[in-house]
Amino acid sequence: MTDTPGATSIETGNGKAVPTKTNPGRFFEDFKIGETLTHATPRTLTAGDVAVYNALYGSRFAVQSADSFAQAIGLPRSPIDDLLVFHTVFGKTVPDISLNAVANLGYAACQFNTAVYPGDTLSASTKTIGLKENSNGKTGVVYVETTGVNQRDEVVLSFNRWVMVNKRDQATPTGAATVPDLPSAVAPERLGQHLRDLDISAYDDVRAGAPHRFDAYKVSETIAHVDGVTVEEAEHQSATRLYQNTAKVHFDQVAANAGRHGRRLIYGGVVISLARALSFNGLANAFAVLAINGGRHVAPLFAGDTVYAFSTILEKADIAAPGLGGLRVRTLALKNENPDTFPMPSTDGKYHEATILDLDYWVALPK
Amino acid sequence: MTDTPGATSIETGNGKAVPTKTNPGRFFEDFKIGETLTHATPRTLTAGDVAVYNALYGSRFAVQSADSFAQAIGLPRSPIDDLLVFHTVFGKTVPDISLNAVANLGYAACQFNTAVYPGDTLSASTKTIGLKENSNGKTGVVYVETTGVNQRDEVVLSFNRWVMVNKRDQATPTGAATVPDLPSAVAPERLGQHLRDLDISAYDDVRAGAPHRFDAYKVSETIAHVDGVTVEEAEHQSATRLYQNTAKVHFDQVAANAGRHGRRLIYGGVVISLARALSFNGLANAFAVLAINGGRHVAPLFAGDTVYAFSTILEKADIAAPGLGGLRVRTLALKNENPDTFPMPSTDGKYHEATILDLDYWVALPK
Amino acid sequence: MTDTPGATSIETGNGKAVPTKTNPGRFFEDFKIGETLTHATPRTLTAGDVAVYNALYGSRFAVQSADSFAQAIGLPRSPIDDLLVFHTVFGKTVPDISLNAVANLGYAACQFNTAVYPGDTLSASTKTIGLKENSNGKTGVVYVETTGVNQRDEVVLSFNRWVMVNKRDQATPTGAATVPDLPSAVAPERLGQHLRDLDISAYDDVRAGAPHRFDAYKVSETIAHVDGVTVEEAEHQSATRLYQNTAKVHFDQVAANAGRHGRRLIYGGVVISLARALSFNGLANAFAVLAINGGRHVAPLFAGDTVYAFSTILEKADIAAPGLGGLRVRTLALKNENPDTFPMPSTDGKYHEATILDLDYWVALPK
Repeated sequence: MTDTPGATSIETGNGKAVPTKTNPGRFFEDFKIGETLTHATPRTLTAGDVAVYNALYGSRFAVQSADSFAQAIGLPRSPIDDLLVFHTVFGKTVPDISLNAVANLGYAACQFNTAVYPGDTLSASTKTIGLKENSNGKTGVVYVETTGVNQRDEVVLSFNRWVMVNKRDQATPTGAATVPDLPSAVAPERLGQHLRDLDISAYDDVRAGAPHRFDAYKVSETIAHVDGVTVEEAEHQSATRLYQNTAKVHFDQVAANAGRHGRRLIYGGVVISLARALSFNGLANAFAVLAINGGRHVAPLFAGDTVYAFSTILEKADIAAPGLGGLRVRTLALKNENPDTFPMPSTDGKYHEATILDLDYWVALPK
Repeated sequence: MTDTPGATSIETGNGKAVPTKTNPGRFFEDFKIGETLTHATPRTLTAGDVAVYNALYGSRFAVQSADSFAQAIGLPRSPIDDLLVFHTVFGKTVPDISLNAVANLGYAACQFNTAVYPGDTLSASTKTIGLKENSNGKTGVVYVETTGVNQRDEVVLSFNRWVMVNKRDQATPTGAATVPDLPSAVAPERLGQHLRDLDISAYDDVRAGAPHRFDAYKVSETIAHVDGVTVEEAEHQSATRLYQNTAKVHFDQVAANAGRHGRRLIYGGVVISLARALSFNGLANAFAVLAINGGRHVAPLFAGDTVYAFSTILEKADIAAPGLGGLRVRTLALKNENPDTFPMPSTDGKYHEATILDLDYWVALPK
Repeated sequence: MTDTPGATSIETGNGKAVPTKTNPGRFFEDFKIGETLTHATPRTLTAGDVAVYNALYGSRFAVQSADSFAQAIGLPRSPIDDLLVFHTVFGKTVPDISLNAVANLGYAACQFNTAVYPGDTLSASTKTIGLKENSNGKTGVVYVETTGVNQRDEVVLSFNRWVMVNKRDQATPTGAATVPDLPSAVAPERLGQHLRDLDISAYDDVRAGAPHRFDAYKVSETIAHVDGVTVEEAEHQSATRLYQNTAKVHFDQVAANAGRHGRRLIYGGVVISLARALSFNGLANAFAVLAINGGRHVAPLFAGDTVYAFSTILEKADIAAPGLGGLRVRTLALKNENPDTFPMPSTDGKYHEATILDLDYWVALPK
């Protein structure tokens, strides 16, 4: 049992002590820079997962919705929503990386490299790239790079994240002070290689739902996505289970009763998917997420709250797929507050109190 | 932007006015008789959608439930539930037809022409066939005919509906006064052509769940469907999203708080599917919906309400499929009231206060 | 109508009495020892059903999660979760066996014989093997053996259960007093024949999520499964409908208001699946359920309750599949009480008040 970090003994009903076989998660001291962890539970995504995802978010991007639309532009069939891919790979990392996390501090450099289709199987591994103990001696920040691959070992996506993790032994300093250099945004010219051979001349604006292609958007333009959606416990729990993300905070009301919020926390990935689905109304042709440059869960979301979103265009660029352009979009999600007034963070970085998500990402649109 | 009806300007965070890229919906003045609108978001229906539909309604018709049962009577596999097809096509029309609708007034002449199988892709278009301004000058009634086709451009279903839509400019009369002539029922001899070649001799009553075939039913016979089902917010929202129907009233509790009911309204199509699933207990062999002659959503349904249903046989007829007979059924759905007492509308058309749906439709049963 | 047990007359709205076409269920007098009932509604299970099941329970066993993992050990693809198979077959028996049941008293000798894959169609039949009238004259116990087969008529699983059923005529004793001899556990050497040809050398512990194989477990070892999950109405209703189990007690709040609990009862099969999914954390390599020796629903579960589980290893044995070992596991599920204290029943059989399920079953693990 010594190779299982954090293994503890438990007492059985008949008084004998045995080692636990349950996963206690890793503590800060268990991570080593350069070490790669192979995560459990590869996952075949199917048309069933797509249907559940659609029922939970109501996504309407035509490329993902209709095989015939996807085939017209040269894809073999509708690819799986990029964010379902992201959440699935992310979910695999939770038992090894963030079971003892105090906070999920940030994402960077999430890049989508290969389309995923129903029947593909995703596996994940994570390399530790930085470790920095906090000055209080109780916690440290773990920086990782996660890679998701398909059944042909093609890299489907990779991303960095950093989490604050409890130390096992608060009394013993580790001296860890390595902070990796992470990019504030993914370089657009690297993006969209998997969309290189599309026949965009066959892309049908009318069927896609809006006439606004790449050229119609201007840097600093802001779009309110109009619609709002109230989230129920059954919905976020089903979504999070679909990703096989079993972090206790999302599912256990008895444990939550003893916690700070007294409520089950909604997984941040649910908020990202809700914001993306809402963004269709205003970005209907932005059919592919190419990269997530960074993201911040500004405040927690709870069941019963209603989510709205608005977006600002940060940047426009050519990408590796001719016929497509890259828009760098900043989407802010709000709870219980309509986005018509565009409550942007103030210049000193203070968010409007309704803000729950600040997401910076690249999407692809037909030119 | 001038070709987008109702486009308005919005202010961005940095003070520049830009045209909105979100869909404001059409107002009464935007419809023209004879014009056909091509709707967005074609949709491939899969075995995943069927599973979500079953989890939400619990349908048990054997032809749709088991490939082996369907194959025994000559179908390639289980077809997709007719109402899932209807809701999917209907959902596509919402952004173009009823986003600014005050009320969905009625349906007529909904005819199912082609079986839909997992993997088929549905697209929809709608022709305006009538326009009548209301005397108050604030609204008008738009009459349309919607057609849903599959990826081979075969007409899967067509239906009429009429909706009350806000005028953009209340001060300027349009003079519109064209009301189309719509049939009170679809002629049965036109129905069921897609079921013409079934081998009904292999239809297994025992496996289907009841011995009552076409001949067992009598005109004016009334059947209480016994079971009741309580609807949750997560269920109706998931169903409505599955159809990519994003009408705000079903999803946004903050907006609902300011509205007449203070609650999210359950999409009427959810009620129709619930009533159909309940009708299995009494109409177990009525495996195909051939047509919807008319429907009225008598009162709104809210989460927490319990739905019951009962049916009266209105008419019996031969249809275009030998071996099958057509029953014209009137199903009334009630909320929070068991249907044992058969609360029919009074002779002056007044409904029992528990009534939420009055649906007139043709179903096919083995003879 | 005389061949439909319990058919009654109802009054229609226009005053004419007609026989009901709805299923009234069987009463105690309607069962005959040796008679086999063919159940309705064969059901094709698909990747869609698997996705809904995963979204509702969050199962993580690698063999069922990833085609590539299943193929590595010699299976054609991921098989369907054994409990989804069980619930599907069980659901078919409800309209014929337990619609008038007062209580589902127990299970025995549930044996899984054949793997089920997406696309397979399940049908069920049930033989009555015992009848014993209760001394109060109001009810009797019906003992049955149910068999589920696939579309090739291969037996997928079989199980016994016994239910207390109302008599139609309390005044007339039936004299029924036949109690079958049912085994307290399935003999392990009969189990796992469908897993005989697996290449366990290719089984990857790391990808499966834990290093603990068959040899790591000891008889009488007890494992707390750590995680808890709060159940919502929408979740248990969706699960129960997925199985086409339409027992009124799970769905109808208006009827429940008049009942003993005032709440919709959660189907016991939901509790079994939740406990099984929770057991992954501690039994991650126990990828197949081979048999259910017995089960008792100790107390009802309601929406809003949080479920926990712990397990004791009862027995270890060789099974019919070389390379795999059989663990006989007793899993107790609790509501709203963390299992860290292992609240076992007392020696006089009295359960801790939080106990909701006591399940005795065989699972297979790699050696």
